[in-house]
Amino acid sequence: MSLVGIDWGGSNLRAFRFGAEGALSETRASPLGVSRLDGRSFEDALESVIGDWLPAEILVCGMAGTRGAWREAPYVPCPAALDQVAARLETFETRLGPVRMVPGLSTLTAGGLNDVLRGEETQIFGAVDPAATALVIAPGTHSKWCRVSAGRIEGFRTWMTGELFAVLAAHSILGRLMRGRAHDEDAFVRGVSFALEDPDIAGLLFSVRGEALLGRLEPQASAAYLSGLLIGAEVRSGLSANASAPIILIAAEALADRYRTALSLAGEPPQRIVDGAEASAAGLSRISGFIHNSI
Amino acid sequence: MSLVGIDWGGSNLRAFRFGAEGALSETRASPLGVSRLDGRSFEDALESVIGDWLPAEILVCGMAGTRGAWREAPYVPCPAALDQVAARLETFETRLGPVRMVPGLSTLTAGGLNDVLRGEETQIFGAVDPAATALVIAPGTHSKWCRVSAGRIEGFRTWMTGELFAVLAAHSILGRLMRGRAHDEDAFVRGVSFALEDPDIAGLLFSVRGEALLGRLEPQASAAYLSGLLIGAEVRSGLSANASAPIILIAAEALADRYRTALSLAGEPPQRIVDGAEASAAGLSRISGFIHNSI
Repeated sequence: MSLVGIDWGGSNLRAFRFGAEGALSETRASPLGVSRLDGRSFEDALESVIGDWLPAEILVCGMAGTRGAWREAPYVPCPAALDQVAARLETFETRLGPVRMVPGLSTLTAGGLNDVLRGEETQIFGAVDPAATALVIAPGTHSKWCRVSAGRIEGFRTWMTGELFAVLAAHSILGRLMRGRAHDEDAFVRGVSFALEDPDIAGLLFSVRGEALLGRLEPQASAAYLSGLLIGAEVRSGLSANASAPIILIAAEALADRYRTALSLAGEPPQRIVDGAEASAAGLSRISGFIHNSI
Repeated sequence: MSLVGIDWGGSNLRAFRFGAEGALSETRASPLGVSRLDGRSFEDALESVIGDWLPAEILVCGMAGTRGAWREAPYVPCPAALDQVAARLETFETRLGPVRMVPGLSTLTAGGLNDVLRGEETQIFGAVDPAATALVIAPGTHSKWCRVSAGRIEGFRTWMTGELFAVLAAHSILGRLMRGRAHDEDAFVRGVSFALEDPDIAGLLFSVRGEALLGRLEPQASAAYLSGLLIGAEVRSGLSANASAPIILIAAEALADRYRTALSLAGEPPQRIVDGAEASAAGLSRISGFIHNSI
């Protein structure tokens, strides 16, 4: 049977259809993310997106495997290589046929705190050469910085950059002086630069208001300035917490541009940028290939 | 005429009535904060709270003097002593008689960014001995750390600690695993301790989720842990950004307890704790007294 790979995140779902030879033949995107199902069942939602591709082998990664979602695939502790993740797939029967769920990873940070990711393990297996050593950054709602050595994910840390931006812009006093969310490169670079110099992001955030009230920040540039502060703070502390290694950035175009700018301002431009959907597709294909070769 | 002092903040209003001899004779609190007027006029709102105290001299500090509120009293740049603030009161006629509005302060942070406060200048003039040197901390939605020397406010910096807690608990993924907001001293201390050790608050926040998912943080203790992380980060970076000086904490009981705990864990317990309403009343009385003595 040919493979259908699913990257099922919180806010959307991506489906990849592979041909008999393993080549990607079709991609679909749907807004039916795990937290946007509105009472629909996971089976119904998935069938509405890929029903006409069935029967097929179904392999799912991402938030659908978290506790309380479709079917929990418990976290695999780091360090974790592809064979360890593949050995812990959660297989279960559905109306659409058997489904395999890829587990997320857990790690202990330097300070001894638990951290988790789900979906990025698959993107990393797809984006990073099995022999490579790299620092992989997967920005987004929750940005993940992952140390990879000889294809093994050694550990990682999460920055809530995207979500902080969203909640501060929508619900805090900082959003009140914003007009729109258009990108303003000057304001973005200014925010990044301040955050690269000053390690204290909690003390920098209020400058969005102070600078605006004193007339040095335009309402239509405030969102880009806040984005720059937050991404700059992430880049500063992510780089200082990790040994130097070639940086691979997994992100779609607009976000990749922002992180490339911030990393370059910090003196560490990314060596390679990989589109997130391509990384997911390649990772799902590799995990499936590994299972079939090892059976 | 006797004095009626008003501390008019975003979420509530406090009114202080002083007797002919200048002693505080009555205090009222109202939920009619600047951002909760629901279309009511400032004059109507104020009259509903203190109409029976009129006629009187009316002196107002706080958010009511910000741009777009009742009447803008432009920021006075730091360093600023009481006489400079008193010289810049904004006086205007109202149905309730003439009103004097106390201006807020602006400052440039070490990094050259604008910061502002409004209301805390009055509390500081009320809480700090005119000859004293102190580091004044006024925590809350926006926590202010103010350097005071010989009664003059030299400069300050804002941490958005209270607002970050509120928006993250209400609107982010961190709030989803919380059950209630009850205080849990152990979890609070644990959060403070992590943040005092690790300068990277942006990278620590997600541990609220990681620790909960891995079973090391109870849902009913998550809010206190997040509060500890945020207050700990503020205390760590506030102390590192300021020269050592006796610390005066201006806050009401519950918040004062949290900050006393965090400051003590950092090795810098406050020398004195002053209730916020008492500080506002004393400051309004001092400003009024200064005007009458200098006329």
